[in-house]
Amino acid sequence: MISSTKFVVKKLKSFIDLTDNEISTFSSMPSRLITLSAGREIVHEGQRAHNAFILLDGWVASYKLLPDGTRQIIDFQIPGDFLGLRSLLLRTSDHSFEAITEITIAEVSAQNIKSTFAKSPRLASAILWAASRDEAMVVEHLVNIGRRSAIVRTAHFLLELGIRLNLIGVGTKNSYPCPLSQYLLADALGLSAIHINRVLRQLREQNLMTFQKGIVHFDNLEKLIELADFQVGYLDQDEPIIRNDTGHTGH
Amino acid sequence: MISSTKFVVKKLKSFIDLTDNEISTFSSMPSRLITLSAGREIVHEGQRAHNAFILLDGWVASYKLLPDGTRQIIDFQIPGDFLGLRSLLLRTSDHSFEAITEITIAEVSAQNIKSTFAKSPRLASAILWAASRDEAMVVEHLVNIGRRSAIVRTAHFLLELGIRLNLIGVGTKNSYPCPLSQYLLADALGLSAIHINRVLRQLREQNLMTFQKGIVHFDNLEKLIELADFQVGYLDQDEPIIRNDTGHTGH
Repeated sequence: MISSTKFVVKKLKSFIDLTDNEISTFSSMPSRLITLSAGREIVHEGQRAHNAFILLDGWVASYKLLPDGTRQIIDFQIPGDFLGLRSLLLRTSDHSFEAITEITIAEVSAQNIKSTFAKSPRLASAILWAASRDEAMVVEHLVNIGRRSAIVRTAHFLLELGIRLNLIGVGTKNSYPCPLSQYLLADALGLSAIHINRVLRQLREQNLMTFQKGIVHFDNLEKLIELADFQVGYLDQDEPIIRNDTGHTGH
Repeated sequence: MISSTKFVVKKLKSFIDLTDNEISTFSSMPSRLITLSAGREIVHEGQRAHNAFILLDGWVASYKLLPDGTRQIIDFQIPGDFLGLRSLLLRTSDHSFEAITEITIAEVSAQNIKSTFAKSPRLASAILWAASRDEAMVVEHLVNIGRRSAIVRTAHFLLELGIRLNLIGVGTKNSYPCPLSQYLLADALGLSAIHINRVLRQLREQNLMTFQKGIVHFDNLEKLIELADFQVGYLDQDEPIIRNDTGHTGH
């Protein structure tokens, strides 16, 4: 278990080149660390919440229980992602969270987030950029559900997950560790577990990709991107979007 | 036609209490104003775009054309919303935009956005907060599609639109102007126009709300909120989430 903020800092730095000072401000935000085993719920009071969490290690599923009793998985959180930030800062309704693997989370109080945001607006914009980017990706994949074929949907989802993991330095361009069961994938993609199984077999038999023993491996990345109609534009980012203004940027 | 940045400034100020200086920096970002009539496309080059737009007046639909030729409306933009910001700053794929009414948009170059973000991080965080909030709302309504009954879905959508308009000072708690046709509503909610028509009649007959002659009116807001299972938490915001740090905030 790696219990540090290195993943989230890597992610934030892909937006804005944070200074050492800003990174240390960020690292001092959490008040305590919590470790939970797989299957546990992360207790979060929703609309009236007074805290949020940073996922430091492990994977989480965020979901919504619908009035008919079904569970829609909205997204998976990976190290570096915030949990519960939306209800604090975005004033929208919140989701429930379940640990998929053993996880370590850092608790941050609303008060602490707000005072840090007031003191360090560059840090605030990096955190909000990350939140907005994640939401935008969720929009993409929700649009996919029910509109694209099962194979396209699955390929798109697994490609996107690879990009997100790359951003925090996990995995390579062709391969990454993935603890998601076929049941979880099914709930996220609006398919049955049997259907997911069949789709993964098809992808394997076409020599496009394999998902076995907790490893996703892209055997033919180019063809897979083509099949999934995946926009590769955001693959090619190799420097922060916003540079430091300590030099001679702007005018 | 009101051609000013007042709507977007009102929206941004609901997150952080921007100074006059910051507001003037924001207002000087756009390079030119463009007016388009209803039905026109907003040309935007997607992944390789070198500009974005601020919607100053009128309504826009953002949509995605799917491989099977159908059109999924992702969201509607109202005055104060950005168009095309996601492909510039969020590195996700972008949507197409169509003017629903006559619109006025202000063009902002990528270069200008990035240098303003570097110079004024508080402004950056306000803009990113707004973007993230909008994405989070889209997530909510995409989750609704196909999972909730047509009447609940429609009620939820029209309540949410009211909240968004309130944030920029348009309409009242019980009523707002809405130029959306039943066809557009249908495309956004995954229903047929005939079905939308029937649902609106039901809502009217139950004395919950009416949508006639371009005006949405909530006749019984409380009961409608209950029917739609609408989380009212974000209704009750009456001051900026982040205060100025010029006083004695923090510790």
